Amino acid sequence: MLTKAELSRLRSLRDKKQREEFGLFVIEGEKVVGELIAAQFPFAEIYATPAWNGVKTHAISAEEMARASHFPAPSSVLAVGRISRTPLVAGALNHGLTLALDGVQDAGNVGTLLRIADWFAFDRVVLSPDCADLFHQKVINASMGSFARLAAHTADLAPALANLTVPVLGCDLAGDDVHSLPALRDAVVVIGSEGRGLSPAVAACVTRRVTIPKFGQAESLNAATAAAIVCDNLRRAQSRG
Amino acid sequence: MLTKAELSRLRSLRDKKQREEFGLFVIEGEKVVGELIAAQFPFAEIYATPAWNGVKTHAISAEEMARASHFPAPSSVLAVGRISRTPLVAGALNHGLTLALDGVQDAGNVGTLLRIADWFAFDRVVLSPDCADLFHQKVINASMGSFARLAAHTADLAPALANLTVPVLGCDLAGDDVHSLPALRDAVVVIGSEGRGLSPAVAACVTRRVTIPKFGQAESLNAATAAAIVCDNLRRAQSRG
Repeated sequence: MLTKAELSRLRSLRDKKQREEFGLFVIEGEKVVGELIAAQFPFAEIYATPAWNGVKTHAISAEEMARASHFPAPSSVLAVGRISRTPLVAGALNHGLTLALDGVQDAGNVGTLLRIADWFAFDRVVLSPDCADLFHQKVINASMGSFARLAAHTADLAPALANLTVPVLGCDLAGDDVHSLPALRDAVVVIGSEGRGLSPAVAACVTRRVTIPKFGQAESLNAATAAAIVCDNLRRAQSRG
Repeated sequence: MLTKAELSRLRSLRDKKQREEFGLFVIEGEKVVGELIAAQFPFAEIYATPAWNGVKTHAISAEEMARASHFPAPSSVLAVGRISRTPLVAGALNHGLTLALDGVQDAGNVGTLLRIADWFAFDRVVLSPDCADLFHQKVINASMGSFARLAAHTADLAPALANLTVPVLGCDLAGDDVHSLPALRDAVVVIGSEGRGLSPAVAACVTRRVTIPKFGQAESLNAATAAAIVCDNLRRAQSRG
């Protein structure tokens, strides 16, 4: 059973302001909820209809699900997680591999970038405050479970990147060939927004500009594509070095 | 001036069946129309309001644009192109580099893949008939002009890939390390659908399975991400070889 108050709270969580106020976010769909449960994400509540076979904390009817769901064709499960944001500890970026996203506004791109960071075992992802919201359903869906496995922080990038001892790599059309990267154990890879690239304050923090060799005519690659190629080359150089 | 018949034809082109019947497709937006004009795409008609500074064939008012447009916030230009599908010549895949898309259904992914093929100067892209429609506005937008520069064909992949003399590369979790690719001057790279990977008939045509080394926990990479990494490694091996 869903009370009116529960229903209205669940429905309100599609709005970012409401999510922040309640400190909660909602995820729907058998696939993504299953992936997050498999990744041991500590859901606060799991609402499910009789069609759902997994763990649940609240049994509800298909009619109740239809009212609670954000989707025109609701699935059998809707889970509620607590928003938690780990503050970025000063100096943390000097250790290991960091993917830093500067104003990546498309939720699907942010999710894809989380998945790339997870595949290449980056230690953390840092999102500038103007990136798509980490707790947006589309980000979590596109991340395919990587959301639950990664340390993700939101922080102003320019102060976080200033005065690091590790190289800060940024993609550029006139940098060093990404195929010649040395073995870097610790590094930050910065990815700019889809439309305008890196913001000037973040571009000023880049200490090594890298270029993906181009053979054809496309003006650029999209943010996630470029990130994937840089990460693959970074790991390749490490395994050689 | 737009006649009622013109208006209704323009509006109908958001539907694939109508596009095929008329042999026409519609593209809207200053950026994408500008990119395609720059790439010398031979538009049949260009409708534009006084706010548009470029070439046009029909001057219309902002009110007429609002009625013709598929968008809630219309731009100043709407162009009409002729659908042309170049048949795939037998044996063509034995020469140069081909990107083959097997059931990639997300229009944004198909556009991103066209952009990757263009960046890496592939000779052609072949789409299976169940891919997102090449003339869908979202495909053309995500391709960022690459649409106009690439030879793109629609064809049943299994017969097209059978009995080739060049290697057919497919991504797999248990193939050869993509970092060890030899220099291949001619090759086909096959990319499977987002949800189910390669179809069995196409998987049977793959002669070289390649694996992108994984360091973390993500189960997979998305179609465009994997394609980008394979293409970068293919070009890198060539430039070494």
